[in-house]
Amino acid sequence: MFISFEGIDGSGKSTQARLLAEALRADGREVVLTREPGGSPGAEEIRRLVLEGDPDRWSAETEILLFTAARRDHLEKTIRPALAAGHVVITDRFADSTRLYQGLSRGDLRGTVDELHRLMIGIEPDLTLIIDMDPAVGLSRALQRMATLAEIESLIAEGNESAEATKRSKALKEISLVTANQQLPEDRFEAFGLQFQHTLREGFLALANEFDDRCVVIEGRRPPHVISDEIANMVRERLR
Amino acid sequence: MFISFEGIDGSGKSTQARLLAEALRADGREVVLTREPGGSPGAEEIRRLVLEGDPDRWSAETEILLFTAARRDHLEKTIRPALAAGHVVITDRFADSTRLYQGLSRGDLRGTVDELHRLMIGIEPDLTLIIDMDPAVGLSRALQRMATLAEIESLIAEGNESAEATKRSKALKEISLVTANQQLPEDRFEAFGLQFQHTLREGFLALANEFDDRCVVIEGRRPPHVISDEIANMVRERLR
Repeated sequence: MFISFEGIDGSGKSTQARLLAEALRADGREVVLTREPGGSPGAEEIRRLVLEGDPDRWSAETEILLFTAARRDHLEKTIRPALAAGHVVITDRFADSTRLYQGLSRGDLRGTVDELHRLMIGIEPDLTLIIDMDPAVGLSRALQRMATLAEIESLIAEGNESAEATKRSKALKEISLVTANQQLPEDRFEAFGLQFQHTLREGFLALANEFDDRCVVIEGRRPPHVISDEIANMVRERLR
Repeated sequence: MFISFEGIDGSGKSTQARLLAEALRADGREVVLTREPGGSPGAEEIRRLVLEGDPDRWSAETEILLFTAARRDHLEKTIRPALAAGHVVITDRFADSTRLYQGLSRGDLRGTVDELHRLMIGIEPDLTLIIDMDPAVGLSRALQRMATLAEIESLIAEGNESAEATKRSKALKEISLVTANQQLPEDRFEAFGLQFQHTLREGFLALANEFDDRCVVIEGRRPPHVISDEIANMVRERLR
């Protein structure tokens, strides 16, 4: 079973992906928890190529090709072998993110994204969990994480470095990289604004409607354990 | 006018591309001389990602996506702006190399290469010069260049380094990288063998036949200046 999590930044999708992996492992299942862009050594290198350097150096078209190359590698090296071994694969983002982010950045590219997907990827998740969230809540959570990152970095700078702080700093840097990547290139500064997050949310809900055979929208403004119980039970039901 | 040079390794296509650029510049024309994979800063980075590291780490499909991403960047940043400014663009390799090398490595991929080209690149050269060469001659030339590289490197190691030697060493390293990349992943050792070079030659001649509206086959076993005069006159005729 191949499961993807999607949603706006700060929606809690990464937390929910991790909690679902833990719940299924507790049931005795083999679970591979992965993420995009990245998820295999080659795809992580392509991810760095896309995310590092001047953010405007790649056109939307080149970016789609690079993301598709990364997804192909992720699929070949991580997802397909795990599914073939009978494991559950849970990915934090998959093709829907490319459909949404590149489609939003240039509306006429949605068709190109779909053609590339059909040609080079093919597979869709069996289940896509879209964590829906009021953008104001999601944004404040995301900004809070970045504030925490800044705090930890200042701790490290002051010489209070510890293994835990280094680990958290690394994880939080990762998150802020992902966040940075989710900004529209045309409107980088505005991207953190609520208007953009509203557009993203609407985009995810429209995708849920378009792919209603595999997408389930989850109300994300409840306590994490309530949400994770709901998701775990839904997945257990489908695995039976 | 957009001109590509294609041919087997050691055919002299890179020399002929350079000589044509010099001849047209001597006529007072603005010429952009470029090469693939690479040809723009972003494409050169993608080139490094493909050519460095374990040669088998990318599947043929991922490699095609990465080459297409590099070509898209090359097209946007180098080729299209130069053509728009009215310059002549001469490239050492273009899409025909992907059609041939990836098509040879896995026959069923030729259709994928063509679909990707139609979707993301679109443009074909106005003129493609295929330098045809007896593989035995081409291979001995290529191996000679690699021997020269080894000689220069031993000179440098002995402390006889000079600016000229460094420059030549760099150029020759580049050539051996290109050569390395033209090996079939499935049959890396055999790739330098004559049989492979024969298959490549046949492949280029078949491409010339398939795209006979833009391809001209040039007999490559004549003195370089004879070939370059013939090519320059042909191009001058077409530019008129």
